[in-house]
Amino acid sequence: MSFKIKSRIWVEKNNTIFLGEGRIKLLKAIDQTGSLSKAAKSLKMSYNKAWKLIDSVNKNADNPIVLKNIGGKNGGGTILTPYGKELIVAFEKINKNCWNYLDKQIDKYLK
Amino acid sequence: MSFKIKSRIWVEKNNTIFLGEGRIKLLKAIDQTGSLSKAAKSLKMSYNKAWKLIDSVNKNADNPIVLKNIGGKNGGGTILTPYGKELIVAFEKINKNCWNYLDKQIDKYLK
Repeated sequence: MSFKIKSRIWVEKNNTIFLGEGRIKLLKAIDQTGSLSKAAKSLKMSYNKAWKLIDSVNKNADNPIVLKNIGGKNGGGTILTPYGKELIVAFEKINKNCWNYLDKQIDKYLK
Repeated sequence: MSFKIKSRIWVEKNNTIFLGEGRIKLLKAIDQTGSLSKAAKSLKMSYNKAWKLIDSVNKNADNPIVLKNIGGKNGGGTILTPYGKELIVAFEKINKNCWNYLDKQIDKYLK
């Protein structure tokens, strides 16, 4: 049969999207580049769109996810908080577990 | 935290979409109405789009999924084959299992 099963997951909070694959990609790019504008550029996303996405995540979260780094030699950048990093790890763990689970499900029900 | 996790699954075959939520809805509507045009109408979908979707599913499947019922008193309709019905059941089972699995995952990793 050679079926493949695919999935897309997202997390909602207060009935709005809190985290999805796009937001996770953006958070990871911020972590890698230390800058929202560089992160947006690396994903070919407008700065405005990136800012809105991050603002939405931050406002919906119980703890801050990104911080503006305003002082010092590397001032002006944007960094992830430890909580932001935890969220990425959790999302990616769940996503990977879901893929493995679905591979087993398809073997069970669609072969 | 009150997170909710959502997912969308789809099945690919030969690197193209074979079954997804839209196609399953359409197959179920065909099963309920006994007619492709009625099914399309009930989903506010054009007949042309519905026909293309069903044609794609049928061509990609190892066994027929829908049959044109050309003879007899109820001729002219479209019916699902037993294989088509099995696919719906399997897809919906996997989808439901996936939701339950993800609910447990979010309790484990995002609370």
